Amino acid sequence: MYEEQGYLVVPDQFSPSETEALLRESGQLSQLDIPQRILERDGEQVRSVYAVHQLSDTFERFTRDSRNLEPARTLLDSEVYIHQTQLNPKAPFQGDVWEWHQDYLYWQRDDGMALPRALNVSVFLDEVTEFNGPIFVMPGSHKLALDDQTVTRGHGWENTLTADIRHKVTPDMLRQLAMRLGLVSIKGKPGTTLIFDGRLLHCSPPNLSGNPRTVIFTRYNSVDNPLRPIENPRPEWLASRDPVPLTALAHAFSAELPDSDRDQALAESGR
Amino acid sequence: MYEEQGYLVVPDQFSPSETEALLRESGQLSQLDIPQRILERDGEQVRSVYAVHQLSDTFERFTRDSRNLEPARTLLDSEVYIHQTQLNPKAPFQGDVWEWHQDYLYWQRDDGMALPRALNVSVFLDEVTEFNGPIFVMPGSHKLALDDQTVTRGHGWENTLTADIRHKVTPDMLRQLAMRLGLVSIKGKPGTTLIFDGRLLHCSPPNLSGNPRTVIFTRYNSVDNPLRPIENPRPEWLASRDPVPLTALAHAFSAELPDSDRDQALAESGR
Repeated sequence: MYEEQGYLVVPDQFSPSETEALLRESGQLSQLDIPQRILERDGEQVRSVYAVHQLSDTFERFTRDSRNLEPARTLLDSEVYIHQTQLNPKAPFQGDVWEWHQDYLYWQRDDGMALPRALNVSVFLDEVTEFNGPIFVMPGSHKLALDDQTVTRGHGWENTLTADIRHKVTPDMLRQLAMRLGLVSIKGKPGTTLIFDGRLLHCSPPNLSGNPRTVIFTRYNSVDNPLRPIENPRPEWLASRDPVPLTALAHAFSAELPDSDRDQALAESGR
Repeated sequence: MYEEQGYLVVPDQFSPSETEALLRESGQLSQLDIPQRILERDGEQVRSVYAVHQLSDTFERFTRDSRNLEPARTLLDSEVYIHQTQLNPKAPFQGDVWEWHQDYLYWQRDDGMALPRALNVSVFLDEVTEFNGPIFVMPGSHKLALDDQTVTRGHGWENTLTADIRHKVTPDMLRQLAMRLGLVSIKGKPGTTLIFDGRLLHCSPPNLSGNPRTVIFTRYNSVDNPLRPIENPRPEWLASRDPVPLTALAHAFSAELPDSDRDQALAESGR
């Protein structure tokens, strides 16, 4: 499935109490007035918070949770490190569109990533429905290098983060691919995991519902595929240049245990 | 159903050859560089063409076709005239969002319509899917006067036509209503008719597919409910001030007949 289609959906990966704990943490992080927080076009609602694994112990443990990390290691067939994390709360009635794009075009051109040996593990913290910004994908598009079919707009890294995206695949090519590959809409309950290849074409309509649509994206890269030096690199919080292999934690942030008990339990389990 | 929910979906109202004929005519009209044609934010793709019943014989007959006109007369329980027609081609990858709104707020405030005795008969000329801009509705919202829960932006009629809409219901009220009433997504094959009350809250996500999503909207008003004089009225092509009752035509633009034969057939049938 993953090799052919470029994505994989796993329901019920995280429990309701776990997604609730992550949502509480998301709410806290969204209130920080820091560069890692990007606003929507309206200048008010939070579009994204990046590098949440550096800002929060909970998210740091989450990114090393074996349910996230092991699939990444298995599918990339190597040790991995975190290239980027992004929290995307997609506010009710305000959360804006993400146009069709391949993440890897950004990682390659703006960050100096050599090969498409990176992937995206995204976890739905709210229910994702047809109304609040499902994730549309083109199955099989991860096999395509689209470098010659793109239009790049603007200078500087700031415009890699807004609704008016920077590296666009041309509408002609998108039309051909949509016809050939078809479209799939990914929806699911809180706790659902969507894993997808760094080159999978994906997009998301705006949130037109009364409920938020919070998704946490962790982008893992193979440690064998570190970033090369590049002129005007994006900041570390958008593209880590520290390819240290991650070690997995079992159910690292289980919400049933207070932090101290959990840390002790993990220590005793020898992890 | 219509009385309780505020909308009604009727599949297969028009045949494939009929919707194809209307699509050909739509393509012609979209090429006219006239004030009635409104472009998307990108300044290139056509967002809407208004008053198509004045610009095209085919659409004029279409608006009097008994399949459109009779439901309008029955549901409004009176003779009707055309307040407005709008062609909305929603171009592949470019067709933009329409936020939640009640049409009647515009007709009342910008056009001087006295009562919500008007409705919308929309016909899908392309297939409407979850990917190309389905129409979301809040069932039952047509019973609500929301005058006190709105924010109005800007001056002049031009900004009643763009993606950044003019009369917005407040997010707080929308959230309450979405929770209470729920959301329904209207999709369907070409030839499907969606009839909805002028006060039904509706919206539509952008077209993220490779196919156009052309819908023709005819807004009928009761002849007992003509527009009152108003300062700075919108142009006639947006809001007709000529409440002449329409007479129905049976299958008025049947695509099987060339125009001349059809006109003769209609004449012979005494219509």
